[in-house]
Amino acid sequence: MTQKNSDLIFCRQGIVRFSYQGRVHYGLLSGQRLRVYQGSPFAGGQPGKAFAPLNKVRLLAPCRPSKVVAVGLNYKAHAKEVDKPLPLEPMLFLKPSTSVIGPGQAILRPTISRRVDHESELAVVLGRKCRLVSPDQAADYILGYTCLNDVTARDLQARDVQYSRAKGFDTFCPLGPAITNEIDPRQVRVRALVNNKVRQEANTSDMIFDVYQLVAFVSQVMTLNPGDVIATGTPSGISPLAAGDTVSIEVEGIGRLDNPVQ
Amino acid sequence: MTQKNSDLIFCRQGIVRFSYQGRVHYGLLSGQRLRVYQGSPFAGGQPGKAFAPLNKVRLLAPCRPSKVVAVGLNYKAHAKEVDKPLPLEPMLFLKPSTSVIGPGQAILRPTISRRVDHESELAVVLGRKCRLVSPDQAADYILGYTCLNDVTARDLQARDVQYSRAKGFDTFCPLGPAITNEIDPRQVRVRALVNNKVRQEANTSDMIFDVYQLVAFVSQVMTLNPGDVIATGTPSGISPLAAGDTVSIEVEGIGRLDNPVQ
Repeated sequence: MTQKNSDLIFCRQGIVRFSYQGRVHYGLLSGQRLRVYQGSPFAGGQPGKAFAPLNKVRLLAPCRPSKVVAVGLNYKAHAKEVDKPLPLEPMLFLKPSTSVIGPGQAILRPTISRRVDHESELAVVLGRKCRLVSPDQAADYILGYTCLNDVTARDLQARDVQYSRAKGFDTFCPLGPAITNEIDPRQVRVRALVNNKVRQEANTSDMIFDVYQLVAFVSQVMTLNPGDVIATGTPSGISPLAAGDTVSIEVEGIGRLDNPVQ
Repeated sequence: MTQKNSDLIFCRQGIVRFSYQGRVHYGLLSGQRLRVYQGSPFAGGQPGKAFAPLNKVRLLAPCRPSKVVAVGLNYKAHAKEVDKPLPLEPMLFLKPSTSVIGPGQAILRPTISRRVDHESELAVVLGRKCRLVSPDQAADYILGYTCLNDVTARDLQARDVQYSRAKGFDTFCPLGPAITNEIDPRQVRVRALVNNKVRQEANTSDMIFDVYQLVAFVSQVMTLNPGDVIATGTPSGISPLAAGDTVSIEVEGIGRLDNPVQ
């Protein structure tokens, strides 16, 4: 019952990373045609002349971030849901690079937690080193956008105060399937589905800080490297995951990120 | 008035990273003799036959962590100082790899903060990939120990609740000068000095969770990669830094990590 890759990618053009015939490549998807990169798009690589068959490759996380900077409470409706005032500035936390997995990889619920939730998010992928930029300049540093699941051990989050453990377990950052810049990041639908039932649905127009403000804000604190990711916050409707579930994060114009839960 | 490297390293044997004649190398220090590594000690490299003159190289951070996992409130006296109960388990947070600097590099105080503090810490450096280990097994995964300054914008820490911004600015994680396993990490003196005046002084025997417990605890959450660092918490006596200061983190048997403040 595995979905075809072509069914999971909604953008006309995007960047993917994949393994095929035992090797890992970046690829440029145009329509159904998957052109293989020479090198990495994050290090000056360019699409070459070879093609790979989209539906026969195994998709991986489309980039390998050195860090994932995430933002808490960035949708007005979610702030209301958890009964908190709207923040005056973005609240940042970090997810470790070791939490990143790709499409189709299993989310492993740690035995220490009794409640593991999905959080659907639009992710910004940086294309260039970025430091001290303004919101007006931010678009120049963004390679594109993809889907991200900010998986969270909700009980540990409450217990620890700091989010690093609750959101930092291995497999707690599904990412993909493709990076595209074809969308208007200030106006796309973001959804989470569990076993094909919608659990979260919102539009990024409900964000408190838009993606350009977020890139600018983070870049005042820390240098963003090519391939680094900013997770832009989750809308209302967070809900728990059980073993055997499949959770899907869907962003309009990008694609659907499916992950089984174990 | 620059100190000699040989004055700043107290261990008889340790690993350093340095630039010399325009190139970056790892080195094995034995007494005053600095043998140049072929490759990286974190990727199977070994000391070669060439030597470099210890006092003519520029020391860098001795490793390049993919993540720095830090522990809050791990000294009994510091918990008392900030009037908090002793934690029942380690409280984790992350510092981004982009915050790491080496000996002698300047700590840049961000204009947005009115109070930037030093925090002297013993750092654990992982030598092997580490996942789900017990405290008894932890020593096998540790390459050694070095000094770390968990620089913190104290006002932002209070305002944000999450520590990621307050502790995540570029230059906020000085590390070095050498990695050694010659010490007993459960019984060494840790100090911070500002302009050569002692501000923090404690012994790691006052830790609530020892380094082996910390490695085991973190490894239940996230995979630790070779070169990753665990910052083991700071003792009492945190104090602010002003422009023009030089802050030194000193760990008995390892060395002294000096950084100017701008």
